[in-house]
Amino acid sequence: MDSVPSSDDLRSAKLLKHAQSWVSNEPLALENGAHLEEVSVCFETWGALNRESDNAVLICHAVSGDSHVTRHDEGDDPGWWELLVGPGRPVDTERYFVICANVLGGCRGTTGPNFDAPGTGRPYGADFPVVTVADMVEVQKRLIEHLGIQRLRAVVGGSLGGLQTLTWATQHPDRLDSAVVVAAAPRLSSQGIAFDIVGRNAIRQDPNFAEGQYYRGPAPEGGLALARMLAHITYLSDESMRIKFDPTRLQPRMIDTDFESMFSVGTYLAHQGDRFVERFDANSYITLSTAMDLFDLGDTGEEIRESLAPTTCRWLFLSFSSDWLYPPSASRQLSDALVAQSKPVSTCEITSAAGHDSFLLREGLDLGGPMIASFLESASVPDRPTIAHDERRVEEPTSIFYADRLDYEMILRLLPPGTSVLDLGCGDGELLSILRARGHRALLGIEHDHSEVAKGIARGLDVIHADLDKGLTAVPDQSFDVALLSQTLQSIIDVAGVLDEIVRIGRRGVVSFPNFAHEPLREMFMREGRLPKEDGLYAYDWHDTPNRRFPSILDFQELCRGRGIRIEEAIYVDSRSGKEIEKDPNLHADIAVVAITR
Amino acid sequence: MDSVPSSDDLRSAKLLKHAQSWVSNEPLALENGAHLEEVSVCFETWGALNRESDNAVLICHAVSGDSHVTRHDEGDDPGWWELLVGPGRPVDTERYFVICANVLGGCRGTTGPNFDAPGTGRPYGADFPVVTVADMVEVQKRLIEHLGIQRLRAVVGGSLGGLQTLTWATQHPDRLDSAVVVAAAPRLSSQGIAFDIVGRNAIRQDPNFAEGQYYRGPAPEGGLALARMLAHITYLSDESMRIKFDPTRLQPRMIDTDFESMFSVGTYLAHQGDRFVERFDANSYITLSTAMDLFDLGDTGEEIRESLAPTTCRWLFLSFSSDWLYPPSASRQLSDALVAQSKPVSTCEITSAAGHDSFLLREGLDLGGPMIASFLESASVPDRPTIAHDERRVEEPTSIFYADRLDYEMILRLLPPGTSVLDLGCGDGELLSILRARGHRALLGIEHDHSEVAKGIARGLDVIHADLDKGLTAVPDQSFDVALLSQTLQSIIDVAGVLDEIVRIGRRGVVSFPNFAHEPLREMFMREGRLPKEDGLYAYDWHDTPNRRFPSILDFQELCRGRGIRIEEAIYVDSRSGKEIEKDPNLHADIAVVAITR
Repeated sequence: MDSVPSSDDLRSAKLLKHAQSWVSNEPLALENGAHLEEVSVCFETWGALNRESDNAVLICHAVSGDSHVTRHDEGDDPGWWELLVGPGRPVDTERYFVICANVLGGCRGTTGPNFDAPGTGRPYGADFPVVTVADMVEVQKRLIEHLGIQRLRAVVGGSLGGLQTLTWATQHPDRLDSAVVVAAAPRLSSQGIAFDIVGRNAIRQDPNFAEGQYYRGPAPEGGLALARMLAHITYLSDESMRIKFDPTRLQPRMIDTDFESMFSVGTYLAHQGDRFVERFDANSYITLSTAMDLFDLGDTGEEIRESLAPTTCRWLFLSFSSDWLYPPSASRQLSDALVAQSKPVSTCEITSAAGHDSFLLREGLDLGGPMIASFLESASVPDRPTIAHDERRVEEPTSIFYADRLDYEMILRLLPPGTSVLDLGCGDGELLSILRARGHRALLGIEHDHSEVAKGIARGLDVIHADLDKGLTAVPDQSFDVALLSQTLQSIIDVAGVLDEIVRIGRRGVVSFPNFAHEPLREMFMREGRLPKEDGLYAYDWHDTPNRRFPSILDFQELCRGRGIRIEEAIYVDSRSGKEIEKDPNLHADIAVVAITR
Repeated sequence: MDSVPSSDDLRSAKLLKHAQSWVSNEPLALENGAHLEEVSVCFETWGALNRESDNAVLICHAVSGDSHVTRHDEGDDPGWWELLVGPGRPVDTERYFVICANVLGGCRGTTGPNFDAPGTGRPYGADFPVVTVADMVEVQKRLIEHLGIQRLRAVVGGSLGGLQTLTWATQHPDRLDSAVVVAAAPRLSSQGIAFDIVGRNAIRQDPNFAEGQYYRGPAPEGGLALARMLAHITYLSDESMRIKFDPTRLQPRMIDTDFESMFSVGTYLAHQGDRFVERFDANSYITLSTAMDLFDLGDTGEEIRESLAPTTCRWLFLSFSSDWLYPPSASRQLSDALVAQSKPVSTCEITSAAGHDSFLLREGLDLGGPMIASFLESASVPDRPTIAHDERRVEEPTSIFYADRLDYEMILRLLPPGTSVLDLGCGDGELLSILRARGHRALLGIEHDHSEVAKGIARGLDVIHADLDKGLTAVPDQSFDVALLSQTLQSIIDVAGVLDEIVRIGRRGVVSFPNFAHEPLREMFMREGRLPKEDGLYAYDWHDTPNRRFPSILDFQELCRGRGIRIEEAIYVDSRSGKEIEKDPNLHADIAVVAITR
């Protein structure tokens, strides 16, 4: 982005190379009550709109971004989301018609503070009205219509772009199939707003700011650079800064700057600040950062659910472990609110040290990109699931699959055809894929290992990245025909709590577990006086087993009885013979599959 | 602090009420090479120095603090550490002679940028030399000597005050008995330095800064206020800001300010900034914040160990869970380096939502204050341990204590008299207290529950707040006669790793554990087919037991054999009869106490 316009271009609102401009002549009523007589929109497109006009993907940019997402040709300047968008990339420009427009209030060709205010002969400056994310999205909607698109395949955005994506879904639910929301939140934290406010105050306090009318004189570069330096810290993480600057702490980079040059991190920030003022307009910065701070889908779960109630798209939320500006917990508030309303949603918290900026970097996109790719692919055909190659194994009864997970067969017997299923601890989604192939609908998985989550999403499944032990409270009562816990009971801390949740969420709960009281285990313990071991899930040594619990059939039955949980059906099997056990299963069976209800 | 001097006072370096001034005429050679011909020191004292001159406690203040720690009388202005210092408070002014001096480079009466530079007829301003924490401490040392004190009972400080405390211990080890270091680190993170740099740049960029020579004109109040607003965010926590501002996000407080007034958090920060400029000098802020950023005891463990090698005092480190400026992990680097050198140290990470500011608030001091009080009390008499009242129970063989912890008796049999002992999972320090009463020396406890840690420290014991499963790597090889693990084995995840550590750290390891293969347990499992239960540590239901492991004597022996750990001695007991078991203990004993070595 550094090679794009000069500050003179910024002040004259000159277009980017490859950008197109369109003017909407219909007056725009802004959320805060002000009006704009007309709006110029600067945008770029890649790929071609298909005949059905149903392959359009809208990309929304972040505060300091613009319409230049990716290269148009080899000689072109690199775009800000090259890693995600382009030919053969996750948002494949050979397949999708990709659109990105500079936002309302920006400084890269769309109407903003650097445009002349009608009838004044001078730019709006600080008189540019307060703009909200909803206003930005309204302008984008007009553009999309102008391009002949009634419904978008997807809206995709990170940070402020994620807020725009959320707004598309809430304000214009009939206009998109799916939403990819990266590193966003129902609203920015008070801490995040506080940093923005200090930045805006630094700009306004710069004597060159001149109440925002600096376009004919020197720009408030010092204040804008300070705002950028501060914001930049919040885009990184404590860990990434440690890695970047600790080895050379007192070795400042040799740069030409008026800012402090004592520490390496100081010169790095000074460089970021000095470069930013060459390509960004201070009034736009104030406008966009204020829009970010004003965005608000609610504080409480109830408010957020209400905000998201009108949405009808499929959702993918990505967040990053070290992002403290839009942290994973905030992303989870959004997905929880959707899960609570039984809306189709997938989430993944990607482990990355790169902070909020992960959404622009390999650190976040190496795992995130493929998830976005498969999500976009599957999102458009919800009733015709893609058949992942491993599902073919279902057709081969002799495959290893059956040998490995004998309990699958028994589970399938306890699932009435076509039922909706929540799979708790779904791993890579193998069982959910089988269920989908067998015609089950409204399937959702919950899994805590992020690489397993990624595999599930790559199968086109809805998977929530969460820890069973931290509660399933977001999932509504009786919202699935079946809530399934397959060979996970022995690794759960709060067994009773999870069982209660299973019968609350599912009209039927199905639980499979390895029976610790199986005869060989009992005999080994009696005879040898050591914690017994057996092939399978109890094959571990006493001192390093991942098992937290050692359930027997009897223990399980007693726990259910004590909590008013009824066992409706049960299948007990001796996995060596493959035979069902009717008599004294607690002694003779090693696998139990139980249907429960309350 | 808000009621103290006006900005005119600041510029004229007028003294605080109750403050005394002393001038050191000996030239001061600063670390960076510059010289000061003389240094004025503004200080306050409370209480009286005793005849032995051994009850002096030096308090070190933070960046925005001063010498006014606490009230001198009822009509006095409140001080900044009222919660900790005063009559009957943890640092008891009826018992200790308490001293606090404004730091070198400050603006509250000690030589700083607002003092006239010799021979120039004007204040130093930005020409005031770069000052380090070591320079500040050198001035304090001169003051202490002037007051007739050769050795301090303790130096106590938080934040920048903590860095001064560390410097006292490293530079002048013969001058203090003990050090209380609150919310500090071997050095500030690059993230923390970055925030400071943005703040200093904001000050220098203020047109009123005038290269630091603003004393006859308007002060750079805008820049200083911005720096303060930014710093203030880092003193709070994400959670405390959420609690404070989220309910009234868009309800700005009605204050008179030139700063943005759109959000409640913005007006709060504006108020903080506007008030700060009334009581602080911008050049001093630059000087002190730079000293903070330059402080550096090293990056790697080895460097930090080397820095702390000369120290001879006893240590107490307190940190706060939500402090992200000087986080608990940084405090741990310091205590690890001391533990590695077998120096006497206690640590506690206090759970608090109030961020770095916890060190000034009830949130941090309700638990921290009593720990500091007992630490100060015990620190001065390392060879005559205070006898806490509950230790008297040792004298009563019929007490509940013996009934509860039968294994203590057996453990004591395996501990040769007078040996040094590391107690892993020491709880509230009960066993260590017994050992101390029996004449054992060089005792250290490790415990992960912070309220238990507080109790141990209140007994005058050295206790490290840490998680056994996260490694004991800081403790050097063979640094204790005995490393003890008493009835904790069953709750450890990495059993083999901890056993390896025990025989690495202790010349002898002593491990007590409940035997899971005890006959009644085996029989119950065989007969009933349920995870067996028994009075004591196996008294839990299968689904909610806190036990992670179920060790039998045989399993334990086999694990030791497999890792080359030798069992030197063992005592097996049936706790019901109280009898030792010689024959087939794995069947007949329910408690095992084993001495191991490698």
